[in-house]
Amino acid sequence: MNADDATQQASRWLAALGYALASSDIEGAARLFEVDGFWRDIVAFTWNIKTCEGRDEIKAMIAATLAGSKPAAWALEGKAAHNDGLTEAWFNFETGVGRGKGHLRLRQGRCWTLLTALRELKGFEEQSGPSRELGLEHGVRRDLRSWLERKDEDEAELGHTRQPYCVIVGGGQGGIALAARLKCLNVPAIVVEKNARAGDSWRKRYRSLCLHDPVWYDHMPYIPFPDHWPVFSPKDKIGDWLEMYVKVMELNYWSATPCLGARYDERAGEWQVRVEREGKPLVLRPKQLVLATGMSGFPNLPDVPGADSFKGTLVHSSQHLGGEPYRRKRCVVLGANNSAHDICADLWEHGADVTMIQRSPTVVATSDALMEYAWSRLYSEAAVKAGITTDVADQTLASIPFKVMPALQRPVYEKIRQRDAKLYEGLEKAGFLFDFGEDGSGIHSAYMRRGAGYYIDVGASQMIVDGRIKLRSRVGMARINERSVTLTDGAELPAELIVFATGYGSMNGWAAQLISQEVADRVGKCWGLGSNTRYDPGPWEGELRNMWKPTQQPGLWFHGGNLMQARHYSLYLALQLKARLEGLPAPVYGLPKVHHLS
Amino acid sequence: MNADDATQQASRWLAALGYALASSDIEGAARLFEVDGFWRDIVAFTWNIKTCEGRDEIKAMIAATLAGSKPAAWALEGKAAHNDGLTEAWFNFETGVGRGKGHLRLRQGRCWTLLTALRELKGFEEQSGPSRELGLEHGVRRDLRSWLERKDEDEAELGHTRQPYCVIVGGGQGGIALAARLKCLNVPAIVVEKNARAGDSWRKRYRSLCLHDPVWYDHMPYIPFPDHWPVFSPKDKIGDWLEMYVKVMELNYWSATPCLGARYDERAGEWQVRVEREGKPLVLRPKQLVLATGMSGFPNLPDVPGADSFKGTLVHSSQHLGGEPYRRKRCVVLGANNSAHDICADLWEHGADVTMIQRSPTVVATSDALMEYAWSRLYSEAAVKAGITTDVADQTLASIPFKVMPALQRPVYEKIRQRDAKLYEGLEKAGFLFDFGEDGSGIHSAYMRRGAGYYIDVGASQMIVDGRIKLRSRVGMARINERSVTLTDGAELPAELIVFATGYGSMNGWAAQLISQEVADRVGKCWGLGSNTRYDPGPWEGELRNMWKPTQQPGLWFHGGNLMQARHYSLYLALQLKARLEGLPAPVYGLPKVHHLS
Repeated sequence: MNADDATQQASRWLAALGYALASSDIEGAARLFEVDGFWRDIVAFTWNIKTCEGRDEIKAMIAATLAGSKPAAWALEGKAAHNDGLTEAWFNFETGVGRGKGHLRLRQGRCWTLLTALRELKGFEEQSGPSRELGLEHGVRRDLRSWLERKDEDEAELGHTRQPYCVIVGGGQGGIALAARLKCLNVPAIVVEKNARAGDSWRKRYRSLCLHDPVWYDHMPYIPFPDHWPVFSPKDKIGDWLEMYVKVMELNYWSATPCLGARYDERAGEWQVRVEREGKPLVLRPKQLVLATGMSGFPNLPDVPGADSFKGTLVHSSQHLGGEPYRRKRCVVLGANNSAHDICADLWEHGADVTMIQRSPTVVATSDALMEYAWSRLYSEAAVKAGITTDVADQTLASIPFKVMPALQRPVYEKIRQRDAKLYEGLEKAGFLFDFGEDGSGIHSAYMRRGAGYYIDVGASQMIVDGRIKLRSRVGMARINERSVTLTDGAELPAELIVFATGYGSMNGWAAQLISQEVADRVGKCWGLGSNTRYDPGPWEGELRNMWKPTQQPGLWFHGGNLMQARHYSLYLALQLKARLEGLPAPVYGLPKVHHLS
Repeated sequence: MNADDATQQASRWLAALGYALASSDIEGAARLFEVDGFWRDIVAFTWNIKTCEGRDEIKAMIAATLAGSKPAAWALEGKAAHNDGLTEAWFNFETGVGRGKGHLRLRQGRCWTLLTALRELKGFEEQSGPSRELGLEHGVRRDLRSWLERKDEDEAELGHTRQPYCVIVGGGQGGIALAARLKCLNVPAIVVEKNARAGDSWRKRYRSLCLHDPVWYDHMPYIPFPDHWPVFSPKDKIGDWLEMYVKVMELNYWSATPCLGARYDERAGEWQVRVEREGKPLVLRPKQLVLATGMSGFPNLPDVPGADSFKGTLVHSSQHLGGEPYRRKRCVVLGANNSAHDICADLWEHGADVTMIQRSPTVVATSDALMEYAWSRLYSEAAVKAGITTDVADQTLASIPFKVMPALQRPVYEKIRQRDAKLYEGLEKAGFLFDFGEDGSGIHSAYMRRGAGYYIDVGASQMIVDGRIKLRSRVGMARINERSVTLTDGAELPAELIVFATGYGSMNGWAAQLISQEVADRVGKCWGLGSNTRYDPGPWEGELRNMWKPTQQPGLWFHGGNLMQARHYSLYLALQLKARLEGLPAPVYGLPKVHHLS
């Protein structure tokens, strides 16, 4: 099928969907999908992020949301493409309150996957491009305030004499990206961040850290990195970028402001958020509270007997600053994922004697292989050249239902296994436990399921192969002694430094710490798909739990993830908050039950 | 002629030029031009910025530069366009040392205007896009320094144990843009700036100041403003942007560092630049010295008798901070150009009684009219939509010889006069002296000829029309008394504030102040075209004097102008400096004689 035929086919299908919905013909609309087809909706119909799997779920969703959403004006954007029996196309549509963009994939005339995503609210569009502000008032009048005076006044008022609509706890990339979206939507918001400067959440990590995702994946909204930005950003460089971003986006960013706790006042329908501002306690009273404290923010600390007796230094990976002080010292790193590898390499670079303790298998793929096979189609220089904008890439990724992702990923890892066969052989010989996940679907799955469990190799795997990093695998830490650790196989390793590279707990741990255990339990586990693989128990959810969408606790939201997610999903979270601020109807469909507490 | 025919015509013409040059057929090459045709070369053939006017000048230039420049690989870029008998096309070419881009306009088969501009040096290309740095070293090795450590070390060394190749005096947009270009070309450079923070040169101006040029004209290189940036940037917002830019571009920017003086050591072929760094004197020894102190940087202060006796406040416009303290005070502003208007408006807004003293006619056009008739084709949202990138806009502008610009501008101002007829009538009635320049070619000409003489109206003209701003025109200031000024017509105006909005002197005044009068006289007047209009005496130069190109003083360069010029010409100045650093042959053709000392 050529592009014109595919375009005609997609156009016809879209018109049929539009007609069925306009006629409230729910059966007819559902029949346009494959029996096992998918409709992923982001905030357009469901005011939720939800993948309906199969015609029954699709029917139920349409039945519940059609009257409220009033979809219309379905129109193809550009030409469709046809490859391998699949017709793909982009389209635009409207709802009663907003404008959306979508993507469809047809197989033999029926829809396999449909994405509908809200992009802007009518009457509350961002002022950008042709609608940008003028910046000065033509026609001079008395007592006109300058930009700086207005900004200073606004900053002096907000949080003091005027309450923000939204408080975002945590000022990493997630909090910053969301605050930027809210700024452009005129939603009064304050970010509270415990660190002294924006970007410190990166700066304070171990010295050799670079982003493991390439630059094309990492752009912040509104101000992309310039073309000379390196592929893998060093942590301090990202820190400086975020600091500048906060400044020029004019965010209300309260640094050096720890959040002490929060409580929901049911009657007032608002939060009381206790913060420490310039050394003094202050209570903020927003309607909405977003925890953007980081999915890698709440350290997991294993309870190893004897830890108190240790005479050396014992830290979680998030507190480890660098190998500098450990020349010729014996160091033991518990864990075998990204941070563990980076920290072991950094320690070795500084002349330490370092042993990694690996308890369970790690998904390993080299950065080069991922660049070649995983990133290249959407996030690469080649993609840029092919006209795939960051936004198109993000939405393409969003258009793939989580259910079908593993099947698409497995062949990628088959290729990677062949490409780097020598490395994998070496790792095997060294006793390193690796796989591509329980179902062979690799790093992306591991990240979505548990936010961990992998190493994107930038060199440390070879160091394990050749013994520069010593390895003990299939063992755990049984006991910590004054100057050593005892492993579960009885071996004893002398140690002056112990690093727990043991990852992070579910984000609802933050809710427990900042709000209450009761609220944490009410919202339940964050992240993970319910894949029924290790650390991601079922039942199947089809979406990341609690992320960027309504939770069981009114007015409480979770925002987190990597830079790509911070960029893309901040838009949808911002639209949900804006709709509530403006009193638009935003009935939530399909709020999931809570199956796991953490 | 349709686009295909035009493309063929342009392609043929370009091939003929390439063939003539390759055959050293200088006569043949010149005959491809109209008798009065133009060839503007920016650093590609001449290592100068030079417009050759007419076949004789073109022949002389080719004869002198052909052997050294070795042009080749002339190739059209995209399709040509044909409008009103004119065929226009973009093309690429190479020289022995670099790659260039050019633009041509043909009339009846012969070339009316040709632009050739060097864009990069072979072997010294910027690392950008596909050639960007990786950012981390794959394959870990001992003693690898992190990005931050390398940056800190570089900053600690440069200017102390290692000399910069280039020192830029002045850290406004000009110095910053140039430093960014040099950074991307790996030319070690330090910007010395007397103010405490980057951006202060804007922040310290009067409070109501906004840029008079729209956002599309104002982008800095590498990091354009985001799409929600206002059309006219408030001064403090631009200040913040520049400060962030300096940080994320990792410039060696020494703020709070006044330059005390500079001396050229002929024997060593280097400068001794005395600066005050953290309170202590320090001598920098660069090979190249750039004065980017601003074409609006060296205040013109008229010598009015009695000024010392004045009991009120007397300031130059550059020192005036805002109208706040002058409620109900009587204020006299000498001058009738941009700053004078802005300051009068600001004073009135704050409740002052304000009188403008206009000595000679001002070119006035409303900002709206300029947006509609002057900017829109190249610098506007419509231009962006039409695919005209900032770089294409800049080069299109650069492709128009200064000689033909007035004839192109006059019709624009005819339209503007009609569009805003009512405003001009009102101004006339109010006694305000206005014209569109001696030859009716308006603001662009005034800016190129003398860098002043106009008001881009954003409201103050109406305030003159309706008397909110009082006006005394056709008079000067004869004497300043203790509490008043006496005008040349004998009238006396009570005054508590006097503002000299009297503009700025030629940039070689900075050379006189920082280096010596002898060097200032050797390089002569900066800016201006030799148009033989007021403040721009002949002979005709065809280019701006001394700007962004070699001067009569080895190793001394002038960089300045508005944001567009800072952006565009910084590239060519940076390439000239890079070529010298790398020891590439860069023989300068057509270094102009000095006709005026200031």
